[in-house]
Amino acid sequence: MPVIRQLDSLAPDFDAQLEMLLAWESVADRRVEETVNEIIRQVRQRGDAAVIDYTNRFDRRQLQAAADFTLSASELQAALERIEPEARDALQAAAERVRTYHNHQRQESWQYREADGTVLGQQITAMQRVGIYVPGGKASYPSSVLMNAIPAKVAGVDEVVMVVPAPDNQISDLVLAAAAIAGVDQLFTIGGAQAVAALAYGTDAVQKVDKIVGPGNIFVASAKRAVFGQVAIDMIAGPSEILVICDGATDPDWIAMDLLSQAEHDEQAQSILVSPDGAFLEAVALSLEKLLAELPRRDIAATSLAERGALIAVDSIESAIAIANRIAPEHLEVSVDEPERYLPMIRNAGAIFMGRYTAEALGDYCAGPNHVLPTSGTARFSSPLGVYDFQKRSSIIHCSPQGADKLGRVAATLARGEGLEAHARSAEYRVEKG
Amino acid sequence: MPVIRQLDSLAPDFDAQLEMLLAWESVADRRVEETVNEIIRQVRQRGDAAVIDYTNRFDRRQLQAAADFTLSASELQAALERIEPEARDALQAAAERVRTYHNHQRQESWQYREADGTVLGQQITAMQRVGIYVPGGKASYPSSVLMNAIPAKVAGVDEVVMVVPAPDNQISDLVLAAAAIAGVDQLFTIGGAQAVAALAYGTDAVQKVDKIVGPGNIFVASAKRAVFGQVAIDMIAGPSEILVICDGATDPDWIAMDLLSQAEHDEQAQSILVSPDGAFLEAVALSLEKLLAELPRRDIAATSLAERGALIAVDSIESAIAIANRIAPEHLEVSVDEPERYLPMIRNAGAIFMGRYTAEALGDYCAGPNHVLPTSGTARFSSPLGVYDFQKRSSIIHCSPQGADKLGRVAATLARGEGLEAHARSAEYRVEKG
Repeated sequence: MPVIRQLDSLAPDFDAQLEMLLAWESVADRRVEETVNEIIRQVRQRGDAAVIDYTNRFDRRQLQAAADFTLSASELQAALERIEPEARDALQAAAERVRTYHNHQRQESWQYREADGTVLGQQITAMQRVGIYVPGGKASYPSSVLMNAIPAKVAGVDEVVMVVPAPDNQISDLVLAAAAIAGVDQLFTIGGAQAVAALAYGTDAVQKVDKIVGPGNIFVASAKRAVFGQVAIDMIAGPSEILVICDGATDPDWIAMDLLSQAEHDEQAQSILVSPDGAFLEAVALSLEKLLAELPRRDIAATSLAERGALIAVDSIESAIAIANRIAPEHLEVSVDEPERYLPMIRNAGAIFMGRYTAEALGDYCAGPNHVLPTSGTARFSSPLGVYDFQKRSSIIHCSPQGADKLGRVAATLARGEGLEAHARSAEYRVEKG
Repeated sequence: MPVIRQLDSLAPDFDAQLEMLLAWESVADRRVEETVNEIIRQVRQRGDAAVIDYTNRFDRRQLQAAADFTLSASELQAALERIEPEARDALQAAAERVRTYHNHQRQESWQYREADGTVLGQQITAMQRVGIYVPGGKASYPSSVLMNAIPAKVAGVDEVVMVVPAPDNQISDLVLAAAAIAGVDQLFTIGGAQAVAALAYGTDAVQKVDKIVGPGNIFVASAKRAVFGQVAIDMIAGPSEILVICDGATDPDWIAMDLLSQAEHDEQAQSILVSPDGAFLEAVALSLEKLLAELPRRDIAATSLAERGALIAVDSIESAIAIANRIAPEHLEVSVDEPERYLPMIRNAGAIFMGRYTAEALGDYCAGPNHVLPTSGTARFSSPLGVYDFQKRSSIIHCSPQGADKLGRVAATLARGEGLEAHARSAEYRVEKG
């Protein structure tokens, strides 16, 4: 069996094959939903007591009071001092670059004044409290802490609250150190639907937040969907994906390793290479086979490549970009000369990695842009996590007497057209008489 | 029974009373959810045939083919010519102001270059297809068409698709005329969960969209929640609300009519006045009683005021603003001298109507800002509908060889800390050797 499937974009059944390759739907398991609804109900009713019960049961903890799942700032600081200096320097360097990049995303309030003195505009403010969900155990990534917390802090959020489960009382020092670096204000060692419910509705120990962001398992995703509306949430993430477009002139080992860096995430991750150079596709297939054997996570990566990966032959870079726009990939690598030439043609992608030197992995950690990106084709309508996710807008309308006179007449006509008499009269009170 | 309840913010049980007053939760009826899930399943399986079956059943239509629920551009244009000239002028004037205001919201792509030549930025693009849900029958508002469609057109969306049910084959000429003015590209006379499903998943006649916006009944709201993730959706709207802050120097009839203009929407609408002037509160109570009697929709408005309205006495304008921030109202009227003095203190509000001349009703129709606003306290984390709702961002990362060298070292350290060897090697290929 080949390490990865090969497709030809000119084959008559290509569209159907591509659709099958991309098919992925989050399983909306009725049983999971019912469990999650019950957990949310319990947390709303019994608060911290329910959070403690579920945490002791699911994470094998021995919590007795909310204080037992609350970490102090000094505990985060201690973890930061405990980790290896090299890791601390790398985290700090990454945090600094992420902060600098996200500073460019801050949006400012604006106003304009019309001839009659009426002022219109928008006031932009930060949310007050935001909750960040960080997975525990094996999937515990310090980079995730930076990527979720820093944009919120840059936005000016008053309090960034982080939850991270500590199964069997284990928690990663790197994760705590990243929380210290990112400036997390409060940290609770809880997870699952019970943590989401506590953030959304509040308990004695956990004040309710305005928005919950961050990845989690099916229970966390299901709980986020359930509390959507009570609080804001970010997109529900699917498996990670990369689409590489290459003209054939990049070292095949480099491109193969880029594909493998997605594939090693998990079995459902998706790595696709599109190229007009058939010989290059063959070379990458050989590189994949060779390099796969050297990886600690080769079993995961091999399953991912075999089940969800593909090398796609096209007739031109332009055709490759058309496929990218259709797939709307989370990560798009454009490994060609003068990649900026193609930028205006790219409509749908979470992040665009341009040129031969921009490995996708740089974006995961330290280039600066966020690594929380829209997956499963949602780049058609979603954006990378950013400062704008933690800001909100209020419209500003300040009518002068003359403005109220002019607008009042239009509004009254339209209000009566909709049968809303009080609207019409409220506007007409401000219309000049006679 | 008084026309509206009066509360005192200094009373010991005020917090509890306020919480009771605000309590509102959309009913997540299991039976509605099951019906909606079945409708979605049918539309995904049977496409237009299912849309036609449900529409004939729920809207008492006699559709035979998709063409029967498709309106052409010339039919919209004909409606525009059929309506009264005064209404046409008012709609056109409103559309022009809405367009001008929303032009200020367009976001532009940005980039910056670092010392080593690495380029970072964000590319901003419009969504390709957007669906707008417009309620039919009694709740059919042409202003809603303008407010939902114009921001999408200003954003540069390629195709704006509108759905509006036509129960008993009835459809408002004003709604069709508004669609013509707003530049709606396609119009289908379907509604309910079946219309949402068709927009989200596509049928032969209805191409799938990237985002669905617009208000609807409980079936529409439930369907939007169900398709969230497959497409983007806007916030799920609750009843409309207004909070008026007044120093006592505005005509009590004006303020009373502003409160009534919310109350006439529906029985669940909420109108609250906060003032440090006790005599003014009494005067507004009398005005409410007097003016209510003159309104065609007095039964609805009276129920709304009695069940959800309140006049709240406070000790200062600052205290009134603290209450506003806690309530996070959809509409906030600041009917005082020099309202701009208070703007920096306002944290949570959908739209802010400043000064004595800015009736909230102007914002509903023609001031320019959007009338689709966050309800039920969601202004804590949501914004008015805007151009930004139809734009999305892609991160741009273009590393120079020197940038890849520097960043590759940091990324490799962090990747190994997370146990992701392929990530580390992919970065290290681009690190300068030796």
